[in-house]
Amino acid sequence: MTAPSSPLTIAQLAQLAGVSTATVSKVVNGRAEVSPETRAAVEELIRRHGYRRQRRRSPPTTLIELVFHALEGDYPVEITKGVTQIAHQHHLLVGITDLHHDPAAGDTWIDAALARRPTGVLAVFSGLTDHQHDRLARREIPLVLIDPADAPAKTIPSVSAGNWHGGLTATRHLIDLGHRRIAIITGPDAALPSRARLDGYRTALDLAGLPTDPGLITGGDFLIEGGRTQAHHLLTQPDPPTAIFATNDGQAIGVYHAAAQLGLRIPDDLSVIGFDDLPSIRWTIPPLTTIRQPLTQMAAAATTMLLHLAHHEPLPHHRLELATELVIRASTAPPPHPRRRTR
Amino acid sequence: MTAPSSPLTIAQLAQLAGVSTATVSKVVNGRAEVSPETRAAVEELIRRHGYRRQRRRSPPTTLIELVFHALEGDYPVEITKGVTQIAHQHHLLVGITDLHHDPAAGDTWIDAALARRPTGVLAVFSGLTDHQHDRLARREIPLVLIDPADAPAKTIPSVSAGNWHGGLTATRHLIDLGHRRIAIITGPDAALPSRARLDGYRTALDLAGLPTDPGLITGGDFLIEGGRTQAHHLLTQPDPPTAIFATNDGQAIGVYHAAAQLGLRIPDDLSVIGFDDLPSIRWTIPPLTTIRQPLTQMAAAATTMLLHLAHHEPLPHHRLELATELVIRASTAPPPHPRRRTR
Repeated sequence: MTAPSSPLTIAQLAQLAGVSTATVSKVVNGRAEVSPETRAAVEELIRRHGYRRQRRRSPPTTLIELVFHALEGDYPVEITKGVTQIAHQHHLLVGITDLHHDPAAGDTWIDAALARRPTGVLAVFSGLTDHQHDRLARREIPLVLIDPADAPAKTIPSVSAGNWHGGLTATRHLIDLGHRRIAIITGPDAALPSRARLDGYRTALDLAGLPTDPGLITGGDFLIEGGRTQAHHLLTQPDPPTAIFATNDGQAIGVYHAAAQLGLRIPDDLSVIGFDDLPSIRWTIPPLTTIRQPLTQMAAAATTMLLHLAHHEPLPHHRLELATELVIRASTAPPPHPRRRTR
Repeated sequence: MTAPSSPLTIAQLAQLAGVSTATVSKVVNGRAEVSPETRAAVEELIRRHGYRRQRRRSPPTTLIELVFHALEGDYPVEITKGVTQIAHQHHLLVGITDLHHDPAAGDTWIDAALARRPTGVLAVFSGLTDHQHDRLARREIPLVLIDPADAPAKTIPSVSAGNWHGGLTATRHLIDLGHRRIAIITGPDAALPSRARLDGYRTALDLAGLPTDPGLITGGDFLIEGGRTQAHHLLTQPDPPTAIFATNDGQAIGVYHAAAQLGLRIPDDLSVIGFDDLPSIRWTIPPLTTIRQPLTQMAAAATTMLLHLAHHEPLPHHRLELATELVIRASTAPPPHPRRRTR
C-alpha cells in the first residue's frame, strides 16, 4: 500500500497501524491507555503522512468545566481569570465547581458533567480521582490538570509552575544575602509542588556547600495558622534561623505573626520569603519577597491545551511547566550582625 | 387588529410581524442570523405586547450565569461559594463571566447568554446596563442583583448588605471608644453602598452630638492605593483624626501603610475600622476590626430568589438586605491620652 499524499483519517491510520480506531483516537487525543509501542507506531505514521479529522462536528456544548478542590482565598480568582480569558475568545462559558476538599463530591459532579457533555474539563490542584479521569476519557471529554498536586496513575496533560526551580531560587536569594541558617516550612508531604520546592531548597544549600540541618525543616500544610505554629517553633529554638522560606504566601503570613509575637522585626531580625505572589500579599507590611507562580498564565495555557485536545489537534507539550520568578520586595535582607535576638 | 391583552406566543408574533416562526424564534433566542430590521420589528412587538413561551418546557439548560464586574481579590470567591452552594443542591452549573470593568463586554456576553438560555442570571456589584436588563426580561430570563452598586431604572430583585447600618455601627464603635475626631474614606461617589455607609457615619456623629468636619471626609475608590493616599492626607493635617473609618477592607490596608510610613502605631496612635471582613484581611497585623458583610449568605439568598423566579413562584422579598455585623479585632482602641504624635 502506498502512502497517500493527503493527511490520513483515523480509520486510515488504524488500518495502517493494524490497531482499532479507538486506539488511534486515544493517541491523537493524548490519552495514556495505549502501549508505548503502539503510540510510537501511530505517531510515526502521523509524522510521515499527517492526520486529519474524519468529520468536523461542532462540540456538543460550548462549556468548559473548571473544577476546584476548594474555593478559598484569591488563588481561585487568579486561575479563573486565565481560563475565562481564553474561553471568552472562543465563545465558551466557564462553569465552576467547588469540591469543598471532599473526594466524594467529585462523583456527584462527574455524573452531572458527563450529562452536560462539556468541551473539556480543567481540574485545579487536586480533587479528581483516577477513576474519574477514566470516566472522562471513556466519553472522550478532554481533561487538563492545572497546578496538579498529585501524580495521576496515567499521563494526563498538565500545566504546573517551575516549583523545583522556584525553591532553588528562593533559597539562593537568602544564601546570596549572607544567610547560613535558613529554615523551610514545607507544604503537605504528599503534594508534589511542596516536595519539589523542598528539593530545590536542599539542592541550593548543597550547591552552596551548606549543611542541611534537619532541625530547620518543618512540615506545614500551606495554611496561615500552620505557618505561624511552625515559625514559632523554629524561632524559639536555641540556635534559631535568620531566614525562613515559607514555601507559600499563606505560611509566610503565619511567619509574620510569629515574628510579631516574638518581637522580631522583618527583615532586620528575620528574613522571610514566600511562594505564589498572590495579589492579597502584595500589601503585607513589609511587602513580602516571594516566588511568583504565573497562575493566570498557567490557567490560560491549560485552557489552550484543552481546546487543542477538543479539536483533536496534537499537543506541542504534554506537560507544560511555566517559569517561576523571584519578586524581591522588602521582607528579605542580610542577616543581623552581631546577632541580637529577643530570645 | 387590536392588541391582545395577554403576552404573545411565537406564532402570534410571527403573524403580526409577517415573518416565519423560525425567524421569531431566532430573535427571542438571541441568534444572530436575522436582519437588524426584522429583529427591531419583532422586538418592538415584544416590547408592546410581551412574549410568552408557547409551552412550558423544562429549562433547556441547567445553568446559572454569574456575571462579575471584575474578578479581583477574594470578594468573587466569597460570592461564588454562596452561589455554587445553592446551585449544587439544585443540580445547576454556575457559569462565570468576567466583564473586566468594561460596559461593552456586557453586550458580547448577553448575546451568548441569550443563546445559552440559562435558568437565570446573577449580576454582581455592577456591570449590566438597563438595556441588558431589558433584553433578559424580554426573554423571560430571571435576573437578581447581588450587592448592587447602582439603582437600576426598573425594580430588579436584589440582595444587599445593610450598608447604612454598618456605617452607623462602625462609627458608633469608634465614638464609644472615646474618639471625637473620626475621619471617613468613602468609596466611589456614585456607588450606593458607599453612599449608604457615609450616611450611616453622618447619622452616628449627629446622634452623638458631634459635629461633622468636612475636612475629615475624603473621597476614595475602594482601592488600597487610594486608601493610602487619602489616609496620608488626613494624618498629615494640623489636627489629624484619631480614628479612620475606611469603608472597605482594601482602603483599611492602605491606611495601615500610611500609618506605618508616618511611624504611627495601630491601634495605640490610630484606630482603623474597615468594612467587608474578607478572609484575606483577617491576618493583617494587627488584625483589622471591621464590619462584616455576609457575602456568601447574600449570594446564596440571591440564588434562592433566582430559583423562585425561574419556577414562577412569588418572591417573599423583592429587595433583601442582610444584616452587617461589627467584628472587633485589634485595630481599634481608645484614642491616645495625652496626644503624642510623630508629626
